[in-house]
Amino acid sequence: MPTGKRIVIALGGNAILQPRQAGAFDEQLANVQSTTDQIAELVAAGHTVVITHGNGPQVGAILIQQEAGRNQVPAMPLDACGAQSQGLIGYMLQQCLGRSLKRKGIHRPVATIVTQAVVDPADPAFQNPTKPVGPFCPEDWARQRMATTDERWIEDAGRGWRRVVPSPDPKRIVEAPAIAQLVAAGAIVIANGGGGIPVIERDGDLVGVEAVIDKDLGAERVAHDVGAQVLMILTDVPRVALNYRTPNQRDLDRVTLNELVAYQEEGHFRAGSMGPKVEACRRFLENGGEEAIIASLHQALEAISGSAGTHITT
Amino acid sequence: MPTGKRIVIALGGNAILQPRQAGAFDEQLANVQSTTDQIAELVAAGHTVVITHGNGPQVGAILIQQEAGRNQVPAMPLDACGAQSQGLIGYMLQQCLGRSLKRKGIHRPVATIVTQAVVDPADPAFQNPTKPVGPFCPEDWARQRMATTDERWIEDAGRGWRRVVPSPDPKRIVEAPAIAQLVAAGAIVIANGGGGIPVIERDGDLVGVEAVIDKDLGAERVAHDVGAQVLMILTDVPRVALNYRTPNQRDLDRVTLNELVAYQEEGHFRAGSMGPKVEACRRFLENGGEEAIIASLHQALEAISGSAGTHITT
Repeated sequence: MPTGKRIVIALGGNAILQPRQAGAFDEQLANVQSTTDQIAELVAAGHTVVITHGNGPQVGAILIQQEAGRNQVPAMPLDACGAQSQGLIGYMLQQCLGRSLKRKGIHRPVATIVTQAVVDPADPAFQNPTKPVGPFCPEDWARQRMATTDERWIEDAGRGWRRVVPSPDPKRIVEAPAIAQLVAAGAIVIANGGGGIPVIERDGDLVGVEAVIDKDLGAERVAHDVGAQVLMILTDVPRVALNYRTPNQRDLDRVTLNELVAYQEEGHFRAGSMGPKVEACRRFLENGGEEAIIASLHQALEAISGSAGTHITT
Repeated sequence: MPTGKRIVIALGGNAILQPRQAGAFDEQLANVQSTTDQIAELVAAGHTVVITHGNGPQVGAILIQQEAGRNQVPAMPLDACGAQSQGLIGYMLQQCLGRSLKRKGIHRPVATIVTQAVVDPADPAFQNPTKPVGPFCPEDWARQRMATTDERWIEDAGRGWRRVVPSPDPKRIVEAPAIAQLVAAGAIVIANGGGGIPVIERDGDLVGVEAVIDKDLGAERVAHDVGAQVLMILTDVPRVALNYRTPNQRDLDRVTLNELVAYQEEGHFRAGSMGPKVEACRRFLENGGEEAIIASLHQALEAISGSAGTHITT
């Protein structure tokens, strides 16, 4: 279809698990099914989509299970847990997307690619781990882990101690050539889940590291590598807002990159939530992308047609 | 290279974890590295390889962790655990194979595809679950699970109770089109780990089931779908043997399909070990494959050149 665009979609956590849900498999699968029903609308409209996603709650559960089973089987490191979560979430997405497409009479190959993302060992994030992962634990456990491993733990007011890991910038998607080949062949690809499995290059070899890459910054790399025209970040709010949650809140409909950068520098976007999304959009456009969109998961089709979401262009 | 063949490799458990190893990540990674060093020899010799693998010990550990963490996070069903193991093992294989190839100056995309395999809900295996999975448990736990779920458990003499699941025949590899596209584009693909995530078709939709597909029978399906000339099953013995572990043991070098079938019908190949390997080879040749090889993991290159392993042709 001549109007079709190549879109990299970054799915937020709510695409797979809603707040206050316990995370049973059937519960997650039902969420994923409504997510892929939305994505199938984009495919039906003639667009080519590549799907990336977060993995916070899933890798959190896997980490809890590593601890719980530690006396019986060896706990896997964080990179290996991330790989497991890519398998799990990719399975759910590809099964549900297959269904969503079939109901629309669309027959396209769908495949999840296990994805590594190269980070720089000199990234300042390695000196300052800030990203909490896994379960809350008692102080004595945290102190024992810090004494016997390289792990860093911090106290989270009133809720116990929690491990923190670095969140370095993704530099390069290792499996980008395979992803691009599949996209070119007409497949719908799910890739770089959880921001990608973080690896560093050591004497030319890839080596996994215990870190977590921001999933939106990872999606930007994928979007660049597959030559996407659009980076679409789907989340739980309808638009990017200035003065968020104040009486002066103003939702943004269309902004230029320059305006966005100015707002960013004024401190409108918080580090833990909208900050990385805006930063991913900024990088995407600076690296040659045509349009970045931040929109509600439930308005994907309206967003691509321009009637919902925040649209950012150069 | 004109002499290059398209080979689907089925890796046995010893390619990832050796008997008596506890299964720490670094231990598994070291095993995988020597495995991929072997596979890189085949690539360097001009062959196109697709890699499939078992997942018994890994999914076993994941199942143990599901039980251990059950009071904190929901346990995932067996199909989802299989998907996790595909992510984990795929990550190890693609990272190590990347290294092995790089050391030989070979630059080829390597990618793991999360893979579902369709089974028939009318498969007699569903009436007779025989494949043990997960941890040994006390009798009262087993009886409680049988009373409150659809699970079947059996007593394993002296070691406790263990869950058994059906092992149905794989009929169709769902992601075969994507696998074939990547192979055609020159990538080295890792797919259908653990025999594939078993799914049934229900009202046209794919639905995961709690079962385990034999990895060699799954590899045969992949080999058929990618049009492989050779199915190579790498295991821990150098050749298929008649009268195995008796004074009359005779290792087979070259046999025809008819000879193999005759030996098979005489009962030479045991259900739990060589049986499914031989059956996978038989199906591969009956479905149009040129050559099936069963060989030691450490003799992959010698096996393809004809100086090691058991070679079966029509």
